[in-house]
Amino acid sequence: MKTVAIVSGGMDSSVLIYDLLSQGHELDLISFNYGQKHKIELTYAAKISKQLSLPHTIVDITNLTSLLSKSTLTSDAPVPDGHYAEENMKLTVVPNRNSIMLNIAAAYAITNEASAIATAVHSGDHFIYPDCRPAFIDALENLLRVANDGFLPADFQVLAPYVHISKDRICARGAELDVPWLDTWSCYKGGETHCGSCGTCFERREAFTLAGISDPTPYLAEPMYKDPR
Amino acid sequence: MKTVAIVSGGMDSSVLIYDLLSQGHELDLISFNYGQKHKIELTYAAKISKQLSLPHTIVDITNLTSLLSKSTLTSDAPVPDGHYAEENMKLTVVPNRNSIMLNIAAAYAITNEASAIATAVHSGDHFIYPDCRPAFIDALENLLRVANDGFLPADFQVLAPYVHISKDRICARGAELDVPWLDTWSCYKGGETHCGSCGTCFERREAFTLAGISDPTPYLAEPMYKDPR
Repeated sequence: MKTVAIVSGGMDSSVLIYDLLSQGHELDLISFNYGQKHKIELTYAAKISKQLSLPHTIVDITNLTSLLSKSTLTSDAPVPDGHYAEENMKLTVVPNRNSIMLNIAAAYAITNEASAIATAVHSGDHFIYPDCRPAFIDALENLLRVANDGFLPADFQVLAPYVHISKDRICARGAELDVPWLDTWSCYKGGETHCGSCGTCFERREAFTLAGISDPTPYLAEPMYKDPR
Repeated sequence: MKTVAIVSGGMDSSVLIYDLLSQGHELDLISFNYGQKHKIELTYAAKISKQLSLPHTIVDITNLTSLLSKSTLTSDAPVPDGHYAEENMKLTVVPNRNSIMLNIAAAYAITNEASAIATAVHSGDHFIYPDCRPAFIDALENLLRVANDGFLPADFQVLAPYVHISKDRICARGAELDVPWLDTWSCYKGGETHCGSCGTCFERREAFTLAGISDPTPYLAEPMYKDPR
């Protein structure tokens, strides 16, 4: 089964790659440069793809940045510190981002005769990002089938194997699969070392801690939040 | 009501502009450069926007062209002649095109606090393009509401007023609204005068004929098909 997986260079989509390979998928990887400050993540996505000898395409959609300019991920405004379960994390929402990316991935899948697209959205994303929820995956699969009737295989799927799974369980799965953690990137701040205090750095540390797995990541700062256990 | 309308410079979306204005919509126009051979249509979209003093944004998504490279509209292959209701017109399908464009328009609408997006898809497009059918509009509206829950107005709509209406009736409506036909562009072939024989030129001529409206368009060639009446 040929599958187009969207990968960011982060923990979750890196585990997704190893997980789908272990299940026998033939993978074609796609990443997006959408003007994010942390585009260093793309070099991490490229590194893992190269290690595994998988085709990897980076799609440049920076032309859309001005359309999406209110998000702190793409504008001049600072990325907020703190936990995702907070009001200020709404500032990191890029409108309709996942739907745009997954729709482009679907076009790529059609052109390359793949029968699925895959995304690593997980249950911890639900609170703040509506386009990471199970209802979104269902609505997207329905849309793609309707929009491309006759051009997609009848069994076309949007795979989101972690949509009901928390990040610490993804981390545990990654440890089973020997995912090279130092070749993954999470920080939203745009530096060359993980800051340790933004929402994604906090999430990354929390996932390792909750999974009981040693975190090899160098961080610039101690977390602003306590160990949740 | 602020509405983001997708306009191509063609007959249908030009009538849509005049129609929505006549209904009191505050319009913000968006067009796409997706690497189409007939990008002359974009200058027509810009001309009508300027005449009406409406904001108009052309979004450059030519980076996606290689993803969509199998369509004759964006590749080196010739655009086929003939009627849309024919097998070879499938060659003009750009995979998932309308879904990608409408999803980008939705992001633009969210950023600009509009409460609707509008598209001029019509009943004559259904046969060959699945992403012009009523089921697509419904699936898209559902997806956008789910994907942007909390970031879109509760009454957000995807307006497709012509989805059940044939092109000749759109033409008749345009005549009522005094749409300047010479400022609209249909031909897919990429020349500077309408070729007269490609699918869209045939459709354009047919619409005027069926509506009983005099067609002021200069064409390079006589139609390859007879008057359908």
